[in-house]
Amino acid sequence: MREELIRIAKEVEEKTGIPTYLRSLENILLALNKTNNFWLIVRYSGEPLNLVAESLKYLAKNNYVLFDGDKIKLSTKGIEYISSNFIGYEKHTCTSCRGRGITIDRLGDDVVKDFLKIHDNRPKAIQEYDQGYVAPEITLARVALMDSYGDIRGRRILILGDDDLVSLAIGLTKVAREIAVVEIDKRLTDYINKISKDYGFDIEIYTMDLRKPLPKELLGRFDTFQTDPPETIKALKLFIGRGIAALHGERCAGYFGLTRIDASLDKWLRFQQILTNEFRVVITDIIRDFNEYIDWDYIDQMHGWKVAPIKAKPTGIWFVSSQYRIETLRDFKGFNKPMLDEDIYVDEELASA
Amino acid sequence: MREELIRIAKEVEEKTGIPTYLRSLENILLALNKTNNFWLIVRYSGEPLNLVAESLKYLAKNNYVLFDGDKIKLSTKGIEYISSNFIGYEKHTCTSCRGRGITIDRLGDDVVKDFLKIHDNRPKAIQEYDQGYVAPEITLARVALMDSYGDIRGRRILILGDDDLVSLAIGLTKVAREIAVVEIDKRLTDYINKISKDYGFDIEIYTMDLRKPLPKELLGRFDTFQTDPPETIKALKLFIGRGIAALHGERCAGYFGLTRIDASLDKWLRFQQILTNEFRVVITDIIRDFNEYIDWDYIDQMHGWKVAPIKAKPTGIWFVSSQYRIETLRDFKGFNKPMLDEDIYVDEELASA
Repeated sequence: MREELIRIAKEVEEKTGIPTYLRSLENILLALNKTNNFWLIVRYSGEPLNLVAESLKYLAKNNYVLFDGDKIKLSTKGIEYISSNFIGYEKHTCTSCRGRGITIDRLGDDVVKDFLKIHDNRPKAIQEYDQGYVAPEITLARVALMDSYGDIRGRRILILGDDDLVSLAIGLTKVAREIAVVEIDKRLTDYINKISKDYGFDIEIYTMDLRKPLPKELLGRFDTFQTDPPETIKALKLFIGRGIAALHGERCAGYFGLTRIDASLDKWLRFQQILTNEFRVVITDIIRDFNEYIDWDYIDQMHGWKVAPIKAKPTGIWFVSSQYRIETLRDFKGFNKPMLDEDIYVDEELASA
Repeated sequence: MREELIRIAKEVEEKTGIPTYLRSLENILLALNKTNNFWLIVRYSGEPLNLVAESLKYLAKNNYVLFDGDKIKLSTKGIEYISSNFIGYEKHTCTSCRGRGITIDRLGDDVVKDFLKIHDNRPKAIQEYDQGYVAPEITLARVALMDSYGDIRGRRILILGDDDLVSLAIGLTKVAREIAVVEIDKRLTDYINKISKDYGFDIEIYTMDLRKPLPKELLGRFDTFQTDPPETIKALKLFIGRGIAALHGERCAGYFGLTRIDASLDKWLRFQQILTNEFRVVITDIIRDFNEYIDWDYIDQMHGWKVAPIKAKPTGIWFVSSQYRIETLRDFKGFNKPMLDEDIYVDEELASA
């Protein structure tokens, strides 16, 4: 079976253009031990959605899995591969913090309560800008993470794309020195503007397309940035390069999410090379599955739905990403060139846009 | 004060040869808000011990801190710098898992109980090999982490240097396919050999100096490696390069600790460049302060003691490291050349050897 699976991996790679390994297929088969729902198979496998979708079709054709109504199941042959190799896993994730290592209660009851209320009335995610936001508890957990590392109190903070309303959560803590937001969607900047006024704190707001260079007054000014870009190399370079260009010097911090659902580990490596060679920033933290996203309304319009082998909705939170933290070091470099004619939402791996 | 601190950072850097930033000094001052013990200041600051030791002397000379018997305290001027800049942090670390994101209870009572017993009678850490091991719960947490990602069940696992007895903890789970250990200290290999026989599982043991190349039968054979090297670039390249050389192919995993106490973030960056450019492996996880070490007997013999501005013992767990996980990708490369004449325990940043 090993040889057959290696051949299947090769076929999937030819079809999708995404590096596919024996271990990718093993990860998918093992995920099928835990769930029968396509979207959760994607989450648990840690493999790119497009790769999982195509692999499942080939695995079905070769009798490792079978499609049963809404459900995807291991066949006898699939079960035999797993048991004859004794492979498997048990998640030992902490149930208190769901593996994030961070809790939000020390932010204070008021901050938590107010932010949940603010979140209730927020504009919904739209496809035009590849939106899709995290649960409000996760936005708060990001703020708690930033506060744990000294990146909020007395700091100037820039949010690049604020679908997750991080600026408002930070604003509620009242400990930041300055907060600025660059966001393309006027629905969001209007909402952020209104809420910050209601609660009595200042946020400097720019409604603009990040493919344009950042305006001069934002460059070399901030201590901390936060962003959550689409996972094409272009978008990563754009959002994180802009973030770095906005930092005022060495040992400033950047936070961002990076999913494996829209990016293979091969793409992760290319991006890590950009971070360490081109931008000369160090990666201080990578916290797996830190970010859990609320399902967006356009799920049946996105590319991932088209390739899904079975058209059934997710049965639980399926879209997750790892939280990165970086720090600038001597001779670091950002990226502020225009990228106006580029489509930053499309490559062979991106499925959620 | 800002200009003065920038000047102090420059002086510390000239003295120590370690990149020193305004933020390094801020991190030290902020740590003094939480503790008066030198070793805990090192831990909380996240800065290299040698840098912290030297900085404290300069900060005292310039009246930001004062030495009061066994205690190191912020002076009025130090407090004023912090409060006038509004900087600070609050740790939001999950109290259930202490920020690791992983719990050990699902390993089973027997595994936990047996391993604690095994740990009670283990050989103590000695300076000759820069030993210093983690608390037994941490060794178990490492195993739980590896199990969460499918890197133990049915897998061939190599431990390079097993001061932490990871091989025995994995052995107790009885789910690995093969376990091998390469370790220089005969006291440890004898102990591992005896215990594995007592508990009825096999561990393949090599008592050898890792500066020699790995023997042929260990190359290209394993699914997973685990190591916890000293933080000189030479030792990192040696231990992790050997580990990668022992892996059988693409999408295999490596686990190791990396501290900031013996390594500046600048050294972290150099090492991340080696990982991503030279070894072509991707970093999938960096979990801060995952590893907490038990104080070793030779603390007052090590370099860090000599440079400490105050000769008082730690008042709590002070030595910590981040847990890394990497995966091999296409065209990855290990390192198995001899490094026999090199001193792998010494550079300007290493303080714990």
